[in-house]
Amino acid sequence: MNGKKILVLGGDGFCGWPTALHLSSIGHDVTILDNLSRRRIDLELGIRSLTPIEPIDVRVEAWEEVSGNRINYAVIDIAKEYQEFSDFLAELRPDTIVHFAEQRAAPYSMRGAKEKRYTVDNNISATHNVLVALNDLGLDTHLVHLGTMGVYGYSGAGFEIPEGYLPVEVADDEGKRHQRDILYPTSPGSVYHLTKSLDQLLFQFYANNDKMRITDLHQGIVWGTQTDQTRRHPALVNRFDYDGEYGTVLNRFLVESAVGHPLTVHGTGGQTRAFINIQDTVRCVELAVNNPPEAGSPVKILNQVAETLRVKELAQLVSSLTGAEIAYVANPRKEAEENDLNVSNRHLRALGLDPILLAAGLLDDTIEISSRYKDRINLAKIPARTAWNADRSSALDNQNHVDIEDQGRQPQEQKQNQQAA
Amino acid sequence: MNGKKILVLGGDGFCGWPTALHLSSIGHDVTILDNLSRRRIDLELGIRSLTPIEPIDVRVEAWEEVSGNRINYAVIDIAKEYQEFSDFLAELRPDTIVHFAEQRAAPYSMRGAKEKRYTVDNNISATHNVLVALNDLGLDTHLVHLGTMGVYGYSGAGFEIPEGYLPVEVADDEGKRHQRDILYPTSPGSVYHLTKSLDQLLFQFYANNDKMRITDLHQGIVWGTQTDQTRRHPALVNRFDYDGEYGTVLNRFLVESAVGHPLTVHGTGGQTRAFINIQDTVRCVELAVNNPPEAGSPVKILNQVAETLRVKELAQLVSSLTGAEIAYVANPRKEAEENDLNVSNRHLRALGLDPILLAAGLLDDTIEISSRYKDRINLAKIPARTAWNADRSSALDNQNHVDIEDQGRQPQEQKQNQQAA
Repeated sequence: MNGKKILVLGGDGFCGWPTALHLSSIGHDVTILDNLSRRRIDLELGIRSLTPIEPIDVRVEAWEEVSGNRINYAVIDIAKEYQEFSDFLAELRPDTIVHFAEQRAAPYSMRGAKEKRYTVDNNISATHNVLVALNDLGLDTHLVHLGTMGVYGYSGAGFEIPEGYLPVEVADDEGKRHQRDILYPTSPGSVYHLTKSLDQLLFQFYANNDKMRITDLHQGIVWGTQTDQTRRHPALVNRFDYDGEYGTVLNRFLVESAVGHPLTVHGTGGQTRAFINIQDTVRCVELAVNNPPEAGSPVKILNQVAETLRVKELAQLVSSLTGAEIAYVANPRKEAEENDLNVSNRHLRALGLDPILLAAGLLDDTIEISSRYKDRINLAKIPARTAWNADRSSALDNQNHVDIEDQGRQPQEQKQNQQAA
Repeated sequence: MNGKKILVLGGDGFCGWPTALHLSSIGHDVTILDNLSRRRIDLELGIRSLTPIEPIDVRVEAWEEVSGNRINYAVIDIAKEYQEFSDFLAELRPDTIVHFAEQRAAPYSMRGAKEKRYTVDNNISATHNVLVALNDLGLDTHLVHLGTMGVYGYSGAGFEIPEGYLPVEVADDEGKRHQRDILYPTSPGSVYHLTKSLDQLLFQFYANNDKMRITDLHQGIVWGTQTDQTRRHPALVNRFDYDGEYGTVLNRFLVESAVGHPLTVHGTGGQTRAFINIQDTVRCVELAVNNPPEAGSPVKILNQVAETLRVKELAQLVSSLTGAEIAYVANPRKEAEENDLNVSNRHLRALGLDPILLAAGLLDDTIEISSRYKDRINLAKIPARTAWNADRSSALDNQNHVDIEDQGRQPQEQKQNQQAA
């Protein structure tokens, strides 16, 4: 196998870590850069991964022990330490960069002024610094970026969402129609999703102006925790977030089940979302790495999703497996209560993706993890308390009022929680 | 007249200063915030305004002397000093913010890694900080932002460019066609123009999520210097940039004429661009301020242009007035050599704009300024030396080689100029 030299930005995170291991396991020469911001946000929010993750140096040592492959790493903040990052790139000269180095929780990005500003400043500076540094150094590195399905919005367009580009017809001055392929018009639902929409325009510009080779993977909601590599040693375990800010919906349901908490469905649960298993995330990145676009061609945009499901269907699936009750709670997000979603993933399928689908058997592994570490769960961190705007904040306030009466909590404590969120 | 309380961000700059004076002259209560970055960039590039502009405190004192109206000002960097800015807003509680506080030169934005990063970081943080601060303070302030025609790109679409939104038809899964209005797909031609495309998505998100009232004015290339207000006292004179980084094309031609330098037309001069006089800039902002969109409605996007012209036609117009020769030089920009451009400005016309058009008589004022201050001109600063990418850099190198042979300059000196640019 001809291994590539691959730099994984954000390689200590939930998707970045298993991706680094997977790429290393198939013979690539992998280096990780990370600013460890995800671990710092854990401290800030008073949360921790359900799984007991090890420090990055312990992780890479364990990997070398079980695989014989060395992964080098460095702690650099690519959004803020441009010169250090540029020097590092000049030395490494990677064939491929896989870029996960962005704040990736929608609720966190909507928490308040500080988090909105951090998400935009961090994500845009990080992405732009990568583009500028590669360009300035004259490197022909293929940049693979993790985008999100959320850039498309969830408006129920009535047609299959294509991969990045939408064919449209416009009429000229004489009324004659012309076909054009345009970047799919973005309709992001949070500041986090907004940053991925901004990234798209950065990529479009640099692909066009400087012939940079860029792949943007618009990923669905990831479920699962472990991959074939993270299972190989306890110190390799992947992080598992279940809190209201960072926990993705299925993982949150499984943790709720493990502790006998009702599955909290926001609104009617009629929101249709796209899902992908973490094991397929790493496979998709491999496929993207192996198939770079030609220099001078438009950004290659792929939808990294396995299937779509309504949130309430997901809750029912988990409920049928675990016996957990379902609780419908006020939706903190400004979004359509019900939407259809039909997404193309034909490019990744054509490249060989045969995705893992949500089904009873395949959830076992994640259910087992939730149960094994249930003593580490902090129940107070499960509810999603970040409201998207003033209207949604009122809705949460009203619900909390009901909670208080139902559960006999102290109103003062409840109010403080609400303010803190 | 019912004056509004208006905050002008970037109110010390080329468009901001005459806008502040105009809004003050018609009875609004105007405050200026500026970080004085434009003056700092003058120092960095070793350039200065052709006109001898006064410090901001002298300017506002002169305005009070001639008009009786006080304009308050403060020096705050809204991209970097968020807390100071937020405190300032909380105290002022403006009805309207006019936002000019962005790095606005396309060539400067393409100069090198440092300037590319500065333009993105400064412009995006500035715009996002305004949105976050207003939202966080719960202010129902109308935000009027200066965008650019450059977000549309200059691809010669074959139809009139609408104001912000493009009606398109898409086919659903059964082949049935649906009409949708989408944000006009952006195709920015420089990092500067890119930032205005990013701004558009920020505005779209906050108008939708938080019902913020936002007007985005996509402005053409500004020509002229003085307005009815800046003429009232020598200390009120507006800045006039003629250098290769900040000089807009017509002002550059006029300065070249004044010193007997050929008019430097990039490429074939077949690029069609949109133009507007500085006097109409301030009138358009007045119209936008007086006509805010309803809360909850989409961003109001207006094309702030008077007319379109090919660059070579502009050169011929100036040549016919001043007798200057025309020199066709290598184009440092990556752009179409020739393009058509047909732009709607019907909303501003409907609001009462009767624009000043480029014609012999109306250029007199600017020609007079160019001649009056011609001793302040630094000839070495006129050429545009910033290449858009590696290909364009080679084209400039080849041209410089010819220049050297033609003009007997020292190759070493020429090479240094090229590298510095």
